[in-house]
Parts: sequence; structure tokens; C-alpha cells
Amino acid sequence: MRASLIYGAGDVRVETVPDPVVEQPTDAVVRVVRACVCGSDLHPYHSLEAREQGIPMGHEAVGVVEETGSEVSGVGEGDLVVVPFAFSDNTCPICRDGFHTACPHGGFVSGAQAEYLRVPQASGTLVTVPGGRDGVDDDVLASLLTLSDVYLTGYHAAVMARVRPGHTVTVIGDGAVGLSSVLAAKRLGAERIILMGRHRARTDLGREWGATDVVAERGDEGVAAVEELTDGLGSQVVLEAVGHMPAYEQSHGVLRPGGVISRVGVPQYELAGVGFGSLFGKNATLTGGPAPVRAYLEEHIPLVLDRTLEPGRVFDRELPVGDTPEAYRLMDSREALKVMVRP
Amino acid sequence: MRASLIYGAGDVRVETVPDPVVEQPTDAVVRVVRACVCGSDLHPYHSLEAREQGIPMGHEAVGVVEETGSEVSGVGEGDLVVVPFAFSDNTCPICRDGFHTACPHGGFVSGAQAEYLRVPQASGTLVTVPGGRDGVDDDVLASLLTLSDVYLTGYHAAVMARVRPGHTVTVIGDGAVGLSSVLAAKRLGAERIILMGRHRARTDLGREWGATDVVAERGDEGVAAVEELTDGLGSQVVLEAVGHMPAYEQSHGVLRPGGVISRVGVPQYELAGVGFGSLFGKNATLTGGPAPVRAYLEEHIPLVLDRTLEPGRVFDRELPVGDTPEAYRLMDSREALKVMVRP
Repeated sequence: MRASLIYGAGDVRVETVPDPVVEQPTDAVVRVVRACVCGSDLHPYHSLEAREQGIPMGHEAVGVVEETGSEVSGVGEGDLVVVPFAFSDNTCPICRDGFHTACPHGGFVSGAQAEYLRVPQASGTLVTVPGGRDGVDDDVLASLLTLSDVYLTGYHAAVMARVRPGHTVTVIGDGAVGLSSVLAAKRLGAERIILMGRHRARTDLGREWGATDVVAERGDEGVAAVEELTDGLGSQVVLEAVGHMPAYEQSHGVLRPGGVISRVGVPQYELAGVGFGSLFGKNATLTGGPAPVRAYLEEHIPLVLDRTLEPGRVFDRELPVGDTPEAYRLMDSREALKVMVRP
Repeated sequence: MRASLIYGAGDVRVETVPDPVVEQPTDAVVRVVRACVCGSDLHPYHSLEAREQGIPMGHEAVGVVEETGSEVSGVGEGDLVVVPFAFSDNTCPICRDGFHTACPHGGFVSGAQAEYLRVPQASGTLVTVPGGRDGVDDDVLASLLTLSDVYLTGYHAAVMARVRPGHTVTVIGDGAVGLSSVLAAKRLGAERIILMGRHRARTDLGREWGATDVVAERGDEGVAAVEELTDGLGSQVVLEAVGHMPAYEQSHGVLRPGGVISRVGVPQYELAGVGFGSLFGKNATLTGGPAPVRAYLEEHIPLVLDRTLEPGRVFDRELPVGDTPEAYRLMDSREALKVMVRP
């Protein structure tokens, strides 16, 4: 089959590799119907050291089950499924808490930007879409694909921040996760949503999804702008969808005392300010992490099927899997918001 | 009057200084009935650079109102009052949110280890104890004094962590704030309370107040011990009552994925690990800050007056104000848990 592998910064290649097979009795092999490139895929695209052995890329997919191991139940051949970006057993105490991304039998899916994909812990991980492949239009398929990661990552940010009616929420980042966070915050009842971003086409979609204000400034100027918009009080909730240090600093800068910063951009730093001058002094709460999208799938699939929710609008380009390198280039250069890859 | 001033590490002196007076129309002057030394007073006692001008010490007090400014209402001469360690207007949006320690008209009380104390924003800050000085026994007076800071700081830790029935809570630190956190967690319904501390007399009081397990080990060994006690899952809540980096690292080490670390020990660091390997990967929530004790006073004074709550038991020594330097020495050497100072 054809699959996308990364060999170093800027070096994504599509190669012919052996088809994946069931390795463990708990595995399934899925024929990929739609995959895509994630903002987090751009981190190795920027900084991965050159290497001999390519790393299979892609962790978002909607597909059809091709084969299952002997211990897999609940999903079977021919089912249309959403593949969460993290696999998990869905039965342990941590999964029952709703934190599937920390499941002791779990891990991260890789190799979705390909024709076929092996998914471990298939019973606990895959969720079937009623109606199957033939019952789903292309726009709905795109929205289902966002439940694999991007939309539910934005939703997780809002859930962890406990966004509720009346809240003022600031979203940092106008990428696909940031825009998803806007949509999720709106659905949870946020009264005011300030989107910090500078790409007009993106912030326009953000406005359509519920942003009441857009702040293009960054750093101290951005903080001052949010302060002014909030009568000097700051924002009760900040959803941080970037993962770089300036976004973190902006987060506690615009936060109202007693407020919540919820991070879902994978942090590209380990150390950060958490002392009196940043978090502690204002009783800030810092939360967030890799979204346990599995916990949210059953609730969201029906909303997508009846088009109550159309997060698939984050995809502004679509390419065949052979052009995955071009998909990375388009996203890296910000020519595209999010690129779908179709085998 | 006599007052305690610090001139550098290890150098606390009691000196005769001018009596405080009403400086602003919103001030009150309080005759101190009981004051005490705080764990946070030990930070300058360890590290303050030697200086010419002494800094007035002490921010915890119960006293009798001596004089009020022309704009003070709600409290008057002769009232027995609890003085929160932070003053605030109690009317602004931040105070209405319950985060009085971030009030834009607020600040920290200083100079309570003395005979008299000036309290700014007296209307918003002071809370009257029904019955007055003559209606209150010494043990109740001690418990009232803990509402000025130490007990309600422990309570704030538990509130910010949203401790609820059934929770497993780990408390790091067996100082007076740590023990207060145990008592507060128990009152909020925690099922299991693991106290990390190594001073037998203190952990014994912790057990009496609700600790179900005591772990004396620190660092990796301490983390392993908590893991073993929790079937490898970790603790849903960690209340961190120390403020030094090893306690922070221990906090995320023992935390269950999706759990909450609530800090009330004033952090003696600004930078800390918050990335994938510490907080983000396990969807940890980090919260806490200076306790807005003012928000909790009305609810707690009656509980102390009828002895439902006896947090005053943290005081194991009592000295006249002239011996404040000895009070610092006793607490620093850990010969005393918490020392009350009586003018």
C-alpha cells in the first residue's frame, strides 16, 4: 500500500510499504476512507532530525473495518468507524474516568496518512457510524473525520475549562483547533468569545462559529486589547490552541483572577511560569491535555450525522494520499487551514 | 507600642515604634488580641538580605477595633474582629467572584505581630465575631485566629480542588496548613486522605483530623508509596501545602490522570514543569493561590464558636509578643508546629 513517512524536517515521502496486518488478537485493520494532516504533525515537520528510518505519519481517520483480531468485539468487517487519535481499552478505571489518552493499555495511533491502518485495542477504540459508508455524504464524512481529533480537541478544551452560559472565553490561535474551540465554547453557552488570530479567512469562520470579537495583536498589545474589551477584568476562560510559549504567556496575561486556562495545543516547552507572577497570584487554574476523544464520540456522531454540528468546514483543501507532502507544505505555509487526504 | 520587625535572615527584633493611626478614611486600627507566626514568614527568615530598615511582620490576627476612619461602616469600636491576611474592598467584581486576594483595591496585611495594627479597607475586610471578646474562651479564640489564614488556606486548597465525597486526596506537607488541608478535605467528604509528612506528633494530629494513611517517604520513594496505596492509579486530588519545588514534583508524581493539584504553599519558584511529562500528558489540573479567606469567614465563624470546628489545635506554643524572635526560632527548627503571639 502507499503510506506517508517523515524522514526529517520538511521531508515527508509517500512510499509503497507492506499492508498492515492484525498483529495482536485485539487489533483491527481499517481501510482508510479519509485522513488528514494535524497541526501537531507540523512539529516534527519543523524540527525532526534527519533519520534513515521513516516514521509513519497521521493519526486521524475515518475508515471501513477490513479485518479484526480474534478478541475484537463490537465492531466488524464492513463497519464505517471513527478512529480516535489515541487507542485505549475503554474499560480500565482511567478510561471510566473519561481520560482515555492516559489508558495504561493505550497509546497514539500512527500511520493514518495511508491506504490501510492497524488500530490496536480495536474493541475499546473504534466507534461505528450507523448507516455505514454508503449512508454518509462527503461533507458529513469530513465532519466525522474531525471527531477523530480536531473538533473534539477543541471541545475537550472547553469541557476541561467548564465553559458555561454567561462566560467570557478567549481563544488563542486561529488554526483548526482554535476554531473548533470557538464552536465548542459557543455550544456550551459562552456569552462572549474573543478570538486571538490574524488570518482573516480563518477569523471569519471563527465569527461565523460564535466569536464576538477578534484580536489580531499579540504579546503585550494583545493582552492590552483583551483587557480593554473586558473592562480591565480579563477573560474568565482561556482556551490555548497553539502550544508555543508566547501563547502560554498570553494566556495568563489575559486571564481574569480565578479564571481557567485550558491547553490543548501540545506544549513545545516543558518549563513555564507557574509562580506568584503568572498563575499563583491570581488563583489561576491551568488544565487540559491530549483530548480523550473516545469519551465524547457516542454523543457527537449523531450531531454530525444530522448536521447539527458541521466542524468539517475546517477542511479547505483535499488531496490524494500521493500528494501528502504537498498537504504538509500547504499547512506549514498557512496556505491551507487543514488538508484532508483521500487514499 | 511593641512590634516585630525583620532585618534579614534569622534577624527578627521586637522594637518600640509609634502606634499606628487611621491614615485613610477607610482604615481601622485594631488592638491585637492574638497573632501568630506563619509558615510563609519563614521564607524571609531564611533568605532576606540584611537591611537597615526593618519590615513589620505578621499578617494573622484577631483583635478589638480601637478606632475607625470616617468612611468605615459595618464594624465599630469595641468589636471583636477576625483580620484576614489580605485586605480587600469586598464589593468589586473580583471580590464578588470570591477572589478577594486579587482585589484591585486590596493588598496584604503586615505588622500583626505587634500590639496594634492598621487595617486598610476595613469595611470590606474585617468580620465581626458575635458576642465580642468577653464571650469567647481562649481555645475558641485560637480557632478564630486560624480563620485569619491557616485553616482557611487549607480549606481553600480543598475548595479549589473540588474535593467531594469518595475522593482520594493526598496532602503534601505536615505543617499547620497541611494539617488544616486534611481537616478541610475530611469535612468536604474525602474518603481517603494520604498525608505525606514525617513528624510523628504532627501526623498524629493529621490522623485525628481524618488522614487514613501517612507516608513518611519523599521524592521517588514517596511517589511509589502513594502509587502502591492507590492500586497504581495515583491520587485524584493533591493538596500541596509546602511551596518548594520537590513538593511540586511530588504532586504531579502522585497524581492520577485527570486529577487536580491545588497549591496553597507560596511557591518559592517561578518556573516549573508543565509540559507533556509533568502536567499535560495526564490531563492534570493545577490550581490554587493565596486564599481569599474573606470569602469564607461568615460561614466559618459560627462553626468555630460552637466548636464544630477546632482548627486552633495547630497552635502548640504561645509566647508574649516580646518573645516573637523565639517564636520564629521554634518554628524554623520545627520544635513548634505553630506559635501564637500574645501582646
